[in-house]
Amino acid sequence: MKIQFLGTCAGIPSKMRNVSSLIIQMLHYENECWMIDCGEATQHQLLHSSMTLSKINKIFITHLHGDHIYGLPGLISSRSFQGATGELKLFGPKGIKDFIHTSLSISGTYIRYPLEVIEIDEGVLFSNHAFSFEAIKLEHGLTSFGFRIQEKDTPGSLNVEKLKSLGVTPGPIFKQIKEGKQITLKDGTVINGADFVGPLKKGKVLAIAGDTRQCNNVKRLAKNADIFIHEATFLDKDKHLAYEHYHSTAKEVALLAKKSNVKLLFLNHISSRYSENTRDLLQESEGVFSKTFIPNDLQTYIIKQNNEVTLK
Amino acid sequence: MKIQFLGTCAGIPSKMRNVSSLIIQMLHYENECWMIDCGEATQHQLLHSSMTLSKINKIFITHLHGDHIYGLPGLISSRSFQGATGELKLFGPKGIKDFIHTSLSISGTYIRYPLEVIEIDEGVLFSNHAFSFEAIKLEHGLTSFGFRIQEKDTPGSLNVEKLKSLGVTPGPIFKQIKEGKQITLKDGTVINGADFVGPLKKGKVLAIAGDTRQCNNVKRLAKNADIFIHEATFLDKDKHLAYEHYHSTAKEVALLAKKSNVKLLFLNHISSRYSENTRDLLQESEGVFSKTFIPNDLQTYIIKQNNEVTLK
Repeated sequence: MKIQFLGTCAGIPSKMRNVSSLIIQMLHYENECWMIDCGEATQHQLLHSSMTLSKINKIFITHLHGDHIYGLPGLISSRSFQGATGELKLFGPKGIKDFIHTSLSISGTYIRYPLEVIEIDEGVLFSNHAFSFEAIKLEHGLTSFGFRIQEKDTPGSLNVEKLKSLGVTPGPIFKQIKEGKQITLKDGTVINGADFVGPLKKGKVLAIAGDTRQCNNVKRLAKNADIFIHEATFLDKDKHLAYEHYHSTAKEVALLAKKSNVKLLFLNHISSRYSENTRDLLQESEGVFSKTFIPNDLQTYIIKQNNEVTLK
Repeated sequence: MKIQFLGTCAGIPSKMRNVSSLIIQMLHYENECWMIDCGEATQHQLLHSSMTLSKINKIFITHLHGDHIYGLPGLISSRSFQGATGELKLFGPKGIKDFIHTSLSISGTYIRYPLEVIEIDEGVLFSNHAFSFEAIKLEHGLTSFGFRIQEKDTPGSLNVEKLKSLGVTPGPIFKQIKEGKQITLKDGTVINGADFVGPLKKGKVLAIAGDTRQCNNVKRLAKNADIFIHEATFLDKDKHLAYEHYHSTAKEVALLAKKSNVKLLFLNHISSRYSENTRDLLQESEGVFSKTFIPNDLQTYIIKQNNEVTLK
């Protein structure tokens, strides 16, 4: 899985960090490429990346604050201008349809690809053979969702060597064995497929919090997440500001990650008061939860099945 | 007068040029500081300039295409976030109110300064002791205006030396003389104020075209303009494309400038197909009209009373 952080700043852009957006690439699943939030100038950030607009097939909006949505009209228009033909699905809280409709219609913008705008509520937004995508309501100044993406477990590996030693060679029979069925071999031997299949490969959990202060639902969002992306707008010394403005501190999030058995924690949505020096935020979080990352804009993290992280 | 070009590209942003916006500073007139158009990421461009959002007191939108307006919601919000208290007036074609209202209300944005949004039609938008500001309808895919700003003529200089030789010393009497009144001096001599005042100082004309193909009204816009800012989306070899898409070529605009007795011509709204090399556009225009400039993003031009240009 690849995660590219396009904008990691809270509220208003700074020279170093743009407002919120990130991209998740799950290209092993039918070329799925998702954007989470789309602050102003997200399309400008993409000019400095190898990602093209046509690759993005779904956009999920956590909440409707300007720093999370004002890049949508331009990005949607440019995707068409650049010749994309594939469908784009945009999921966001109630109000997103009005915003997109008004922006495109008053500017006389015609989109040449199928665009579907879906207003969401809590619950599973979609589910297929590979994963389920759930929206969980958090606590912010206006309706704000976290997204929990649960990969489905996949069958374990087939013990090919053991099968070969019994004279079973690769072919359609392997599929039946992998499904755990009982099979009669040519020589009359009966084998139990399940005996030749390793343990289930546990699906990964990716959890992304929109803006929120700490609440019960964010615990549900975080539980056992392999990768947890959460805002850390403030340092813990500004905890009262965080609470007042429905945000979180780095320490609060680190504690949540620890209690929730999270494997990797990424902090974003950094207040511009710290955006050029995030050392204090990182120290605060690492003091509680060592596997913390504070990405810069345009950094891409590649995360392997064993949760090994490579920064590209 | 200072003109700062923030975005000089047509349609979609490139790495080198952002979409449309420019700033006119007429600080000698009660700190007037105007923005013309506000494409996406105009506020980001300002981060690389000494201009602050609070200084801008009027924004004029030529037309509602996305590359001229999608930066408005973010810029208006950030102006408040940064603590501006002075009024902002936003003038634009019908539809601008709906766009601003929808963007701010669905995002729960509260603006802490007085914001007035005014839907405009052809004619003089405002006029005061110093200048008149007129909107002229041009020819584009949707309603598009050019703006003609006419400084009012000001009285000529007082011939102080000549007055001193008659024993008239500086004081309130100078004001009456400057107004051309007949004055009786202490020794009974009667003088005619007008004899001591130089010729009227001609007010300058600044004309800014929104997107347009060539038409009668653009001639009216350009006539005798000291400074003429006009789009040059295409080279003349792509004249058919320019016409089809309601745009202009560099040559067409240069010819217009020449016929209209323009003093200085600035070309902007450059198609991304040329945006990294504008030499051909410049040559095409200079071949007809030598005083042509093609600004880059973030360049500021200072223009003196005698139309001498300094690039900052």
